[in-house]
Amino acid sequence: MDRLKVTEEQLSFLSQRVESALERWLPRENIHPASLHEAMRYSVLNGGKRIRPALMYATGMALGVPLKSLDGAAAAVELIHAYSLIHDDLPAMDDDDLRRGKPTCHKAFDEASAILAGDAIQALAFNIIASDPEGPVSATIRLKMIEVLAHAAGSRGMAGGQAIDLASVGMALSLTELEDMHIHKTGALIRTSVMLAAHAKPGIETDTLGRLDHFSKCIGLAFQIHDDVLDVEGDTEILGKPQGSDRDLNKPTYPAILGLAESRVRALDLYNDATDSLSGLGDDASLLKDIAAFIVTRES
Amino acid sequence: MDRLKVTEEQLSFLSQRVESALERWLPRENIHPASLHEAMRYSVLNGGKRIRPALMYATGMALGVPLKSLDGAAAAVELIHAYSLIHDDLPAMDDDDLRRGKPTCHKAFDEASAILAGDAIQALAFNIIASDPEGPVSATIRLKMIEVLAHAAGSRGMAGGQAIDLASVGMALSLTELEDMHIHKTGALIRTSVMLAAHAKPGIETDTLGRLDHFSKCIGLAFQIHDDVLDVEGDTEILGKPQGSDRDLNKPTYPAILGLAESRVRALDLYNDATDSLSGLGDDASLLKDIAAFIVTRES
Repeated sequence: MDRLKVTEEQLSFLSQRVESALERWLPRENIHPASLHEAMRYSVLNGGKRIRPALMYATGMALGVPLKSLDGAAAAVELIHAYSLIHDDLPAMDDDDLRRGKPTCHKAFDEASAILAGDAIQALAFNIIASDPEGPVSATIRLKMIEVLAHAAGSRGMAGGQAIDLASVGMALSLTELEDMHIHKTGALIRTSVMLAAHAKPGIETDTLGRLDHFSKCIGLAFQIHDDVLDVEGDTEILGKPQGSDRDLNKPTYPAILGLAESRVRALDLYNDATDSLSGLGDDASLLKDIAAFIVTRES
Repeated sequence: MDRLKVTEEQLSFLSQRVESALERWLPRENIHPASLHEAMRYSVLNGGKRIRPALMYATGMALGVPLKSLDGAAAAVELIHAYSLIHDDLPAMDDDDLRRGKPTCHKAFDEASAILAGDAIQALAFNIIASDPEGPVSATIRLKMIEVLAHAAGSRGMAGGQAIDLASVGMALSLTELEDMHIHKTGALIRTSVMLAAHAKPGIETDTLGRLDHFSKCIGLAFQIHDDVLDVEGDTEILGKPQGSDRDLNKPTYPAILGLAESRVRALDLYNDATDSLSGLGDDASLLKDIAAFIVTRES
């Protein structure tokens, strides 16, 4: 069996792990107010790839952090990601009708429900890290994780990135400006997925923290470049959204600035840089490296 | 000087206190992404009454909790309130053009900015409690505060209440259904404002916690009833929104169900019930009682 196949199986295992955590934490549809909980579950439990939780778990494996203590944080990161997609899809933002081949939240429900479902999902994310009975024993560690996640989700992270993105539609961005947008918009949360597991390790060394930080920054940007490449060459059926939809929206992309071939090279350079920085972690970091490879080779 | 005048002066003092905390925590307009930070500051630093922080500080005074250790939590509660107003005002929700006499966030900026400013403000609220260097020393206490605030903001609190509210427009609600809506929509966050200060008191007795919980539930509901009464009889200039705007939206209100006089009586009954439950706390709770009186007598 080839290496990519093994990685996909491990990703599938980790995805099921966070899926059952999300299933546990999301209020059931019969709990009042039922329609809001229905919209929340519809949008979160929709077959996402769960790359961010996988990065968190794989970092936990590399550091010897028990996966059980990361279930809450893994669910929290995925909830922040899921709520951002609901809001990004709104008519006032990207105005998308489809997400992973299914109607977006505001299409399946309505705009107000989509706004509120997103809002409530964000609150749930922080609630989970604060209250998960299986989470890290140290309250100080949990506070640090909440701080790091809140920073990544906020105006100097993901929400800020989306604001930069919306302000950039139809504009000619430089490579630096494009990178700045993605470091905020997708990079911050991917970086945080790795760093939450790092912070969950009591007394983690500064050097290891720095290596993981560099790894996660590189892989976060590589993820976005590959996403842009996929948008140009990917298949609509696999992507779950119309191929070329970024170009149609006149959004700045790496292929538009660098060309397709140079974009691919850049993603691979970042991949190499990322995996190099894990050299000190030994074999325990092998899954983390494999996920990095998956990120720059995935077809959807 | 009459008692109401003194209360107003103390409210003004506490309002300035949280104002400077908010001013400190909100990223400045010149920090990247500048337009998002401008929208956040515009919406938060807009001369709100800051009733929720005042309730928190007054509870802290009643319990001997240093006010300095509550500045972060007071700012956080007000940020959750502020973000909910930004989202409630959106066209897909209440579609309001004015808030406290000024254009609402989506009118002063645009819809996408208003959605993102709200999202980023919510994240900031949790960031502050997690990271405030002056906050409660105990990390366990802070985690409890984050859990309580996240629950109050989420689907079983404020966001849920807004969902119930939107589903109720144009419907004939029973008194029980109307109360259920308000217990979620405004009650949860007012209750939490009191309870965060209670949880900040190390080793608080269960009896005191129960009394403050009862106080805050009563006053939360009384606040909303008085709000509905003001919407019928208030003056547009003082309210900062058109008088009768709830009725125009065909929203269910207490006066519509109980009549104006009976609504006033109900607010006063709740006020009495609330202050009775503070009897064990002695003179230290006098400002808390005075704020309760202000809540059911205020003119805007």
